[in-house]
Amino acid sequence: MEEFGKLPGIGPKTAERLTHFLLAGERRQALDLAEALQAVSEQVRPCRECFNLTEGEVCSLCSDPRRDRSLICVVEQPKDVASLEKVGTFKGLYHVLGGRLAPLENIGPEHLSIDALVSRVQRGGVQEIILATNPTLEGDGTALYISSLLTNYPVKLTKLARGLPSGSVLEFANSQMLSDALEGRRTF
Amino acid sequence: MEEFGKLPGIGPKTAERLTHFLLAGERRQALDLAEALQAVSEQVRPCRECFNLTEGEVCSLCSDPRRDRSLICVVEQPKDVASLEKVGTFKGLYHVLGGRLAPLENIGPEHLSIDALVSRVQRGGVQEIILATNPTLEGDGTALYISSLLTNYPVKLTKLARGLPSGSVLEFANSQMLSDALEGRRTF
Repeated sequence: MEEFGKLPGIGPKTAERLTHFLLAGERRQALDLAEALQAVSEQVRPCRECFNLTEGEVCSLCSDPRRDRSLICVVEQPKDVASLEKVGTFKGLYHVLGGRLAPLENIGPEHLSIDALVSRVQRGGVQEIILATNPTLEGDGTALYISSLLTNYPVKLTKLARGLPSGSVLEFANSQMLSDALEGRRTF
Repeated sequence: MEEFGKLPGIGPKTAERLTHFLLAGERRQALDLAEALQAVSEQVRPCRECFNLTEGEVCSLCSDPRRDRSLICVVEQPKDVASLEKVGTFKGLYHVLGGRLAPLENIGPEHLSIDALVSRVQRGGVQEIILATNPTLEGDGTALYISSLLTNYPVKLTKLARGLPSGSVLEFANSQMLSDALEGRRTF
């Protein structure tokens, strides 16, 4: 119960319920969960290339010959890779920073995989880097910092489009969204 | 009570409460509300130029000499003008369609102020038209229809940027938002 209770979104009541569920049913189920947890903690690690989570040395995306190696999309977390892969239109590689710069939490460049990103660019072959950090204050700051490191390399730096989310209405958009949408308007 | 109850978001209970409130207080208050309602219905009408709501012949935006008359932002509703004006960065004029094309509801071009928009363009002086209908299926369809009518005039047609709303995170963006954000990416 104590261990379940340490997980996010699981309070003492839920922890108790989960524990009793495992105790009441087949013992096999508790052992299966234990094995899965052990496997995750032992086998899942950051990809040597892009720092996405993988069970091998290099993740399935980095080792896929069909992916465009000249295009790297820089994201904060492995879950962002999953979100973008669900869209299915991006055919390049990724680079997972492992977070964002957050001076107030003492998270500096040394805590992120920024050096490794610069190395990937130095090795050559990269033509475009999409700085796809979250469109928040800290995400923007992180993108700005990375852009300052890469400004002297012959690589095109881009950022994700900002504006109105598809399916929304102007009425409920806030000023920042409308300002982005006006500022970034494109030829019809 | 019956009349209050016809307003959106006001149920029978609230209608009763409002009526008793007016009956319990100063009679003056009920009369003031009656006067305001009369004034609204008699004096507020569409601007002759842009179809935004106004009390005169021409609205305060259309008659403001500081506004850029070469730039027209086309929106669905008067409330969209209010939203964009709150941002404060747009310095052109507006054109309020009075809705969007909705074939299923039998709302065709003749129900909107589309002819008047074409007339404004024909009169000359307009350099850019921002088709700022809502980023919905019907809003997009309306923008497409208007663009087809204006394609032979020497006017630049643009649309609002679509992508991630500022302040959001990739994790909670849906596929369409991420797809827009990738497709519309811009140089950093």
